[in-house]
Amino acid sequence: MTVNYATPSAEQLLPVAGVRLGTAEAGIRKANRRDLTLIELAAGSRVAGVFTQNRFCAAPVQVCRQHLAGHDIRALVINTGIANAGTGEPGLVVARATCGAAAALLGINDRQVLPFSTGVIMEPLPLKRLVAGLPLCQAALRDDSHAWFDAAHAIMTTDTVAKAASRQIALGGKTVHVTGISKGAGMIKPNMATMLGFVATDAAISQALLEQLVKEVADVSFNCISVDGDTSTNDSFVLIASGAAHNTEIKDAANADYTKLRAAVSEVATELAQAIVRDGEGATKFIEIAVEGGNDAAECKAVGYAVAHSPLVKTAFFASDPNLGRILAAIGNAAQTHASLGDLDVRTVKLWLGKTLVSEYGGAAASYHEAEGAREMAHSEIVVRIDLGRGAAHARVWTCDFSYDYVKINADYRS
Amino acid sequence: MTVNYATPSAEQLLPVAGVRLGTAEAGIRKANRRDLTLIELAAGSRVAGVFTQNRFCAAPVQVCRQHLAGHDIRALVINTGIANAGTGEPGLVVARATCGAAAALLGINDRQVLPFSTGVIMEPLPLKRLVAGLPLCQAALRDDSHAWFDAAHAIMTTDTVAKAASRQIALGGKTVHVTGISKGAGMIKPNMATMLGFVATDAAISQALLEQLVKEVADVSFNCISVDGDTSTNDSFVLIASGAAHNTEIKDAANADYTKLRAAVSEVATELAQAIVRDGEGATKFIEIAVEGGNDAAECKAVGYAVAHSPLVKTAFFASDPNLGRILAAIGNAAQTHASLGDLDVRTVKLWLGKTLVSEYGGAAASYHEAEGAREMAHSEIVVRIDLGRGAAHARVWTCDFSYDYVKINADYRS
Repeated sequence: MTVNYATPSAEQLLPVAGVRLGTAEAGIRKANRRDLTLIELAAGSRVAGVFTQNRFCAAPVQVCRQHLAGHDIRALVINTGIANAGTGEPGLVVARATCGAAAALLGINDRQVLPFSTGVIMEPLPLKRLVAGLPLCQAALRDDSHAWFDAAHAIMTTDTVAKAASRQIALGGKTVHVTGISKGAGMIKPNMATMLGFVATDAAISQALLEQLVKEVADVSFNCISVDGDTSTNDSFVLIASGAAHNTEIKDAANADYTKLRAAVSEVATELAQAIVRDGEGATKFIEIAVEGGNDAAECKAVGYAVAHSPLVKTAFFASDPNLGRILAAIGNAAQTHASLGDLDVRTVKLWLGKTLVSEYGGAAASYHEAEGAREMAHSEIVVRIDLGRGAAHARVWTCDFSYDYVKINADYRS
Repeated sequence: MTVNYATPSAEQLLPVAGVRLGTAEAGIRKANRRDLTLIELAAGSRVAGVFTQNRFCAAPVQVCRQHLAGHDIRALVINTGIANAGTGEPGLVVARATCGAAAALLGINDRQVLPFSTGVIMEPLPLKRLVAGLPLCQAALRDDSHAWFDAAHAIMTTDTVAKAASRQIALGGKTVHVTGISKGAGMIKPNMATMLGFVATDAAISQALLEQLVKEVADVSFNCISVDGDTSTNDSFVLIASGAAHNTEIKDAANADYTKLRAAVSEVATELAQAIVRDGEGATKFIEIAVEGGNDAAECKAVGYAVAHSPLVKTAFFASDPNLGRILAAIGNAAQTHASLGDLDVRTVKLWLGKTLVSEYGGAAASYHEAEGAREMAHSEIVVRIDLGRGAAHARVWTCDFSYDYVKINADYRS
């Protein structure tokens, strides 16, 4: 059911010097699937992350936040099957023990390890099986593109395809690589599905600027497919910079190298984020909601999310039914969750489907014919453009339609 | 697919003196269905209403707000088929013309008529057919219980059963009647489906107190099945008091008669609101989310809505899968939309399914066994109880599960 996305071949991915990956079948929840990934970073690597804002954030997320404060991360451990969320104090003990086991294996400190989990909530993570799998991961550690390809597969849950992307740029005569992997699915209200994203570069960049970069990139990529701030129990996006490309360390956001690196990382992250939507549970269409003419980007995003999260809009897209009043209703509804939209004048709002003007002055556009709407709706890639007509800000949100299969996948998820 | 609800027989409904109802087939959108209702009120009747907060509120809602300011309403006109929403200035003209046609027929002023529409958005309401249907409604006007029964059917859209309820009380030796009808459906995110509720009583009550009463009743009934404030384009809940019971006019909220009347009206409205959920599109289960231990009712409701609106929770209920971590994740997510929950400590939260304690201290309860969860999940009426453990406030929200049929109904709605 993936909408216009295919996993790149291993050959299309670029290794990132200083980053080695290994995967194994640990039998966390089911046998015969790769469900454990170890990522080892060369000494001197820098790491920054953004995490879910959910109050029930998972134990590994809590541990990640603590360990990242130490600024000397050397390894990441990622398991699927069990999310280690809603597991209370025992869950924290297991997440810390995971770090301890990886640290012992690699000869580093517990606090130099970041743990990540995704899968079923409120079930205990089987520590013994996870720990037993770590040496298998270690034995498999490689820094080539096949290792990235394997890791992209090992972090999948209900994903139907692995997600990976690479870019190469030159910074001051040095070749710099950016490669990332992600997992997602569960797209009707993406804030409830765990999204993991790991992007690594061999660029040298200061810790402070890396922390700025991860936020800036998240805002135009992973945070455009989710509610403001990531809000599942386990959502994590981590950016790694090994420094192995030996470019002059980027320390200033005004430096042109920063702009170039940000563009490359943003492209990789956007491709990974969009791939999550394209592989949304039951998705048959990829929909971009481009909102312009707002007073600020936040209110544009609020309108985009209101449309993206409306099940009535999403089922209409599934049915290719140009029942476009549902989009207007969703726009009108955004004021309920975003206060600055309380004075939105619907008479200034314009709505396009593709290039077809559908609505203006609070009603159907005089030039609009439903046959045109139906033609636009039939495409597998659809742009909904909304001009709020009250400012110069803009934002984009990506989503997918909502089909029978969404219900099937989520009703059957644990079986 | 209705969950434990059957329409009362006409004999079970109580007439309300001073209120006459008539229905007709006007062919608004399709032929051979009753789609037009006229309600005529005796002189001296009082009317109050609460309406959608959606910025794209429908033309009839705008006209209702204007006309209610005049305080001398004598008639209501309700059509199905076309919502007259997203219709701009021409839609307002049609809504006003509807009032004009009814006024001419009944010999009253245009501004004494309230118009209501429900159905497809962004299509023009065929004024000629509506106006042609009004004399048929007028000819059918009756004040007996069969008239209420017929009207309950005539306001249905995707509803599978008509919704009606009655109560009788004594106020100062006088018999007072309360009868109401409602329509709903589209329950996965009810803020996007039009909900109409009309409740009439023959009690005498001051205009000011009636306006307080409609808000108080909405808060514990129709507003418990929807996002705070009603947010579709057409949602309306109207309370009529004809005064024909000749009780001593209730003017003071501290009066015991007010408490008695409020209880009766609340019971009718709650039954009508719950009936909407029980008849939710594709619903197979009725779920009450009872939240207690909050700092205030608003944050309890926010938690209730977060759980009620989570498609992952709703599909789990459909599957009878006690994947209860999804409920914890939804609770943790409520802080995203309700700021006061930003300091929610998940270690104080307790979760019960029916009488089974499922979660405490941020994880599964030691006494919890999944078999018990599965047993509770198999019921058609389920109570999810959440104690936030930080205050004395409480609130309830009602919702239904989320099945294949929801997608089917909404993908096919216009065809």
